[in-house]
Amino acid sequence: MDYRQSGVDIDAGNEAVRRIKALARSTFTPGVLSDIGLFGGLFRFDGQRHREPVLVASADGVGTKLKVAFLSGRHDTVGADLVNHCVNDILVQGARPLFFLDYLATGRLSPDVAEQVVAGLARGCRENGCALLGGETAEMPGFYAAGEYDLAGFIVGVVDRDNLIDGHSLRPGDRLIGLASSGLHTNGYSLARQIVFEKLGLGVQSRVPELQATVGDALLQPHRSYLKIIEPLLDVTSSEARSPTSDVTDLGPRTSDLGRQAMLKGLAHITGGGITDNLPRILPEGICARIHRDAWPVPPLFSFLERAGDVPVDDLYRTFNMGIGMIVACAPEDANRVVETLTAAREQCWLIGELVPGNRIVEYV
Amino acid sequence: MDYRQSGVDIDAGNEAVRRIKALARSTFTPGVLSDIGLFGGLFRFDGQRHREPVLVASADGVGTKLKVAFLSGRHDTVGADLVNHCVNDILVQGARPLFFLDYLATGRLSPDVAEQVVAGLARGCRENGCALLGGETAEMPGFYAAGEYDLAGFIVGVVDRDNLIDGHSLRPGDRLIGLASSGLHTNGYSLARQIVFEKLGLGVQSRVPELQATVGDALLQPHRSYLKIIEPLLDVTSSEARSPTSDVTDLGPRTSDLGRQAMLKGLAHITGGGITDNLPRILPEGICARIHRDAWPVPPLFSFLERAGDVPVDDLYRTFNMGIGMIVACAPEDANRVVETLTAAREQCWLIGELVPGNRIVEYV
Repeated sequence: MDYRQSGVDIDAGNEAVRRIKALARSTFTPGVLSDIGLFGGLFRFDGQRHREPVLVASADGVGTKLKVAFLSGRHDTVGADLVNHCVNDILVQGARPLFFLDYLATGRLSPDVAEQVVAGLARGCRENGCALLGGETAEMPGFYAAGEYDLAGFIVGVVDRDNLIDGHSLRPGDRLIGLASSGLHTNGYSLARQIVFEKLGLGVQSRVPELQATVGDALLQPHRSYLKIIEPLLDVTSSEARSPTSDVTDLGPRTSDLGRQAMLKGLAHITGGGITDNLPRILPEGICARIHRDAWPVPPLFSFLERAGDVPVDDLYRTFNMGIGMIVACAPEDANRVVETLTAAREQCWLIGELVPGNRIVEYV
Repeated sequence: MDYRQSGVDIDAGNEAVRRIKALARSTFTPGVLSDIGLFGGLFRFDGQRHREPVLVASADGVGTKLKVAFLSGRHDTVGADLVNHCVNDILVQGARPLFFLDYLATGRLSPDVAEQVVAGLARGCRENGCALLGGETAEMPGFYAAGEYDLAGFIVGVVDRDNLIDGHSLRPGDRLIGLASSGLHTNGYSLARQIVFEKLGLGVQSRVPELQATVGDALLQPHRSYLKIIEPLLDVTSSEARSPTSDVTDLGPRTSDLGRQAMLKGLAHITGGGITDNLPRILPEGICARIHRDAWPVPPLFSFLERAGDVPVDDLYRTFNMGIGMIVACAPEDANRVVETLTAAREQCWLIGELVPGNRIVEYV
């Protein structure tokens, strides 16, 4: 008996690694010191660029959107989904991405499929200026159904401690601005697939008139990255009146920042759990979010799922992003400036709510 | 229809996250700025401690050793396996760990199992002084068999650029010292399981006299971390005679290091692919490794698998670690010092080979 007979093909693995190397190289930024194939990926950290650097890291998966990719035989989009998801997860704390690593696990490794998956990862990395620094391709006989795989990603970015966005300064009256999503992003697919494939009996090739697309195309729309659209707003100072400060005791090197307040006071990435579960993650104690459901047009895909699945409205907003992929929180004085800046960059956005006293929940009106 | 009916239980997810938070907190080092639950984990990077810091990152999975955990109903060891594996993967480049993130994916989430898995991760992190900074717990109906899951990990560490270990200074005559493994570590399980469970028909409770253990205990032995044993050797300077240097043109700030050579010239973590595939990863062009197979006692588990599976010897050394989990390469003048230091720390190690001219392969004698 040998390893190949046990279901693990080291040669297929080596072939996949060879193809992946070329794709990964296309993403390399000046910080990358290593080629793929070392035990660890090497990234030179430029400490001079930051006064007090904070590394921001996040791990995520694509979830059951992968099943739609399997049904469609299209493997080159899920990688970009994953990178964009991870980029957004650290962007909401003010961080810009440095590097990304992936974990691709399958029952029987196909170098062709692995190459397509990594091509999507590499495209996503290039578009976000993020190096694909390494990863693991695992062949695990007996774990995954034929033709299936799982894909997870891991990102590291950096932000100066003074520029961290964590919602601590949020207060009643602050405005909530929603940015358009591009579809389901990577959440709610277990429910969406059940409605579309099981209840309605549609296939990925089925054309749905109200979506003006096939089911496969509608469900595989890539998760957007908000990095390019949000980045120009990251270092902007709020025009909010300086609040009277009674506890100014620190006269050390941070004095110059006392009273400075970033325009973006909080950012929430709307992922699994929808607006209902994600917006509270940035709310301080004593604050509640009020969302006006009629403030933005819910895209046809969500209305279609609601109707076809007879999904209760509470579940709808706790499962799907409902057309809002990112929420920006800012002082009322800054709301117009944020909306105008985003609109000038051709971004679809709406004033969707405000903060009120309450207990860290979302209240829909 | 709602999300729970589609197979995703958000409440079970929230319960798992609650339990995981407490475990993760037990690993927090002074660099951690965030609690679990933010979109990204925050880690303060102390740039002052490094002249030219290089971040070293690696991704890995546990592989099909997980199947043995499923059969044994024991979920608290695979997490430590994974952390130790990742720690070793960056240690071989000279890096000490900063933080770790996990990806745990399952078909139907059991908060109990998730808690056990993360308990193992947290223990591994504490033992390596590494913060469990975040992670993703994904419930993916239809992806994994009942009671099964996949587990991947991502680690980030740091090393000063001057102290990077990458094998570039290796030359013919350098010695190879092997450090004992604690079992299969996390590699070769597809073959081992086929031999033990399918060919021999044993169960995890079966007692194998020559192993003085049950099959489950023998196969679940945790992957060792070599951090504590190798760390004291990381910053030691070689006693190798300074080689004549003809190209000394750089008289900048690195002048003081000219001629300095770390005692550890190369480190190879023996993972999937065994000594045969892993040792060449650190060999420069024109160098080949000669390994003396009789230089160390192959542990009974490997002899048992060889005999029971009738595994050809080439496959054996390309699949299993054969009792050597880490290989240190050093100048001949330093070999005794390395062996004596390791032995004084009660580490089992052997002089197992040397480098010779050749083409980046392992030659067994």
